[in-house]
Amino acid sequence: MRVDLVFTSGMKTVRDYHRKTVVVIDVLRASSTIITALANGCLDLLAVAEPGDAAVIRRQIGEGCLTGGERNGLKIPGFDLGNSPLEYTAERVAGKRIIICTSNGTKALGEARNADELLIAAFLNAEKTSQYLREKEDVVLFCAGSDGEPGLEDLLCAGMLIEHLVTEGEGQLTDAARIGLLTYRQLLAGRSSELAKVLYESDHTRYLASIGFAEDIDYCAQVDLLPYLVRVKDGRIIKEQEWA
Amino acid sequence: MRVDLVFTSGMKTVRDYHRKTVVVIDVLRASSTIITALANGCLDLLAVAEPGDAAVIRRQIGEGCLTGGERNGLKIPGFDLGNSPLEYTAERVAGKRIIICTSNGTKALGEARNADELLIAAFLNAEKTSQYLREKEDVVLFCAGSDGEPGLEDLLCAGMLIEHLVTEGEGQLTDAARIGLLTYRQLLAGRSSELAKVLYESDHTRYLASIGFAEDIDYCAQVDLLPYLVRVKDGRIIKEQEWA
Repeated sequence: MRVDLVFTSGMKTVRDYHRKTVVVIDVLRASSTIITALANGCLDLLAVAEPGDAAVIRRQIGEGCLTGGERNGLKIPGFDLGNSPLEYTAERVAGKRIIICTSNGTKALGEARNADELLIAAFLNAEKTSQYLREKEDVVLFCAGSDGEPGLEDLLCAGMLIEHLVTEGEGQLTDAARIGLLTYRQLLAGRSSELAKVLYESDHTRYLASIGFAEDIDYCAQVDLLPYLVRVKDGRIIKEQEWA
Repeated sequence: MRVDLVFTSGMKTVRDYHRKTVVVIDVLRASSTIITALANGCLDLLAVAEPGDAAVIRRQIGEGCLTGGERNGLKIPGFDLGNSPLEYTAERVAGKRIIICTSNGTKALGEARNADELLIAAFLNAEKTSQYLREKEDVVLFCAGSDGEPGLEDLLCAGMLIEHLVTEGEGQLTDAARIGLLTYRQLLAGRSSELAKVLYESDHTRYLASIGFAEDIDYCAQVDLLPYLVRVKDGRIIKEQEWA
């Protein structure tokens, strides 16, 4: 198995993801929100890059459809939901389709659209995802980061996935993947109960806390709370009930 | 002091380096070769992106000028020197100007040309460089990497610089800089005598060794062997004899 890592969007081209199993990681908060929505019974999610596109698609779909997302961490005006996973309760999202538009997660999903398989991971489903990846030959962990800058929280999650993968066996890591693993080991290995605390070393974590989302951080730091495999299939983000 | 880190070229625009003190790090081997050439009495170096440009400039300068550089690690056909620091002996380079053209180091220098101050560092002058940086307010450590991919060897050197900077006092690190520091601490802190061995964890190190440059790696792993401050000034790469 070969494992590569991308620190943020814009570092590779669409073509680079061809024939790869790509895992998009945007811990705070797009990945965590998507996983939560699906765990709470949302039918599927469609990721769009522009808020205006979300409104167009909602009108086409009509009933049973919600819009969700953020700009600068705050709910987009006119949208039903923001980007806090705590908003995506079963009461709000069960049986619904959600059009989601976030700053970084959506961008990463767009760049990786040529992947052979495209998965979405966060701490919430980290172990389940790495368990699935063990069968794969060519894995790219795509950290969404923030506005083209790497995010420590995404790298730690990628490092956790790599730790699970390499303890299993061989695994050929690129330098970027090795950097993810080393960062994870230095900061977090054997201390995953302190994850929420450690996340505060990241700039984006502190920003989210400063605008009132400290609860989201505690929530997103729960490793494998929602052990589902989440993937993009034919443009739809879905949860797989079962897999090999 | 604010410290940022760039993992490889292409991640920021020319404008992002404006008003910053930028340090370009290409440990294997452009930075190490440049520092060595200057230590051995080379007058100055001019960095060019294209081998053809080097030939044009050499013809203009005439006598006392050498060309140096590599493609895929190997000497460019028709050039006087390759990119091995061991070639840049006093016998070859003293009193000469060198036009240098390397794959990644030169590219990074070009991207950072708008910097307020532009320095060149490697392990060979790491402590001297970080000593100088302590006075600065806004520092960017620009790891050249390889063909748009991060290189572990450059990140370790950047991490070493950051370690020296933050032990001095406050220092506000971006997530990227923090990743460099964590990687350095996990792999190298307190074991700098094993640096050459640790460098073999990087893909590019193993590649260079495979094409016959293992000696270069041992050489480039010598921390502060050549304690000079190297900077780009008016397009010329020079060694400063003295500084505050």
